[in-house]
Amino acid sequence: MNVGILGTGMVGRAHAAKLAVSGHEVKIGTRDVARKLAETEADPMGNRPFSVWQKDHPGVKLVPFGEAAAHGEVVINALHGQAAVEALKKIAPGLDGKILIDIANPLDFSKGMPPSLFVCNTDSLGEQIQRALPATKVVKTLNTITAHLQVDPGRLAGGDHHAFVSGNDAAAKARVIELLKAWYSWTNIIDLGDISTARGAEMVLILWTQLWGAAKTPFFNFKIVR
Amino acid sequence: MNVGILGTGMVGRAHAAKLAVSGHEVKIGTRDVARKLAETEADPMGNRPFSVWQKDHPGVKLVPFGEAAAHGEVVINALHGQAAVEALKKIAPGLDGKILIDIANPLDFSKGMPPSLFVCNTDSLGEQIQRALPATKVVKTLNTITAHLQVDPGRLAGGDHHAFVSGNDAAAKARVIELLKAWYSWTNIIDLGDISTARGAEMVLILWTQLWGAAKTPFFNFKIVR
Repeated sequence: MNVGILGTGMVGRAHAAKLAVSGHEVKIGTRDVARKLAETEADPMGNRPFSVWQKDHPGVKLVPFGEAAAHGEVVINALHGQAAVEALKKIAPGLDGKILIDIANPLDFSKGMPPSLFVCNTDSLGEQIQRALPATKVVKTLNTITAHLQVDPGRLAGGDHHAFVSGNDAAAKARVIELLKAWYSWTNIIDLGDISTARGAEMVLILWTQLWGAAKTPFFNFKIVR
Repeated sequence: MNVGILGTGMVGRAHAAKLAVSGHEVKIGTRDVARKLAETEADPMGNRPFSVWQKDHPGVKLVPFGEAAAHGEVVINALHGQAAVEALKKIAPGLDGKILIDIANPLDFSKGMPPSLFVCNTDSLGEQIQRALPATKVVKTLNTITAHLQVDPGRLAGGDHHAFVSGNDAAAKARVIELLKAWYSWTNIIDLGDISTARGAEMVLILWTQLWGAAKTPFFNFKIVR
């Protein structure tokens, strides 16, 4: 199927690579294609320049945000949290009626480490995005998990850990759950409720960051033991 | 050993009952002993009146907050989050030099369900308590777990799930980890770092509340799968 991905960082690349290898038509969106391709240095997170990465992933087409949104039957938001709402507003018509899988986190690194959240508690980034795109079906998911595990949960404990989904549209959530199973072999997915439950899924990132520090690796995940 | 417990709600009672049965000298503190014993109705959380509960737990002595603090070699804070800092300030001298195991959560139910937090993100209740009691060694723990599992983790999946500890004093944290093992047979305890890491452990309560709603039971816990 046609999938649009917004954001060329670690999360966007992980999804693009996995979906392209699986035979999907993937377009990955960036603000300025020429500028992105001209980058020659690793980004602040240590990711290789996009042009270098793309040589290993020839099936992934780099396009402007609007083209990626228009291309996707389903669109994945893998933008940096702080840039997400403004970038999405600019391409809102291309997302009308579509499912937007929102993986972004409202992390604020402006005061250094550890990060805090720029929205939480009585609001969330997921809700901000849903309000900015009222005609789009926003489903928050996978934001609690490191990028490579998002697309390959079986790499950890045979997949015996959990993903969460939050969203207002029941059919859209059911479709996203179906896609997570089909695309990435997710087996354990908990429906938290409407998009306001993105608050909980985003607020857990502070504990996630601390656990990363304690474990010295991002290769872990939460399992809800019942 | 002598243990002081502050707060007569579900959490305080769970710890008091378990420790008394194990042969510890337990005093449980309340603001006004006569008033607490005069209660004849279940509290808003559905807990039986204290006097009824106490008949099943004759080893637990009900005393004023200050007496419970003075009694305890180690003291457990099981107060409602919103009352905790003010109540603790009043008995601060009795806690000087002691370990305070802080289980309270900054939950705000004043706007109904779901709750929000009255402090989070760039501060936490654990930090507020540590600032209010600078001569006390505050160790945040168990606040992410329902009361009966706090004191009996083996009731769920043989204890294969996690507790967290946060605190500034390394020796106090090590002592609390030792006590959690000895008192309640906890086996999986992750040290998150200094008391500022209480932010993450408290912010996870929003997801915890959502999971309670989704699972229709509080008998679950987080396992960190690595």
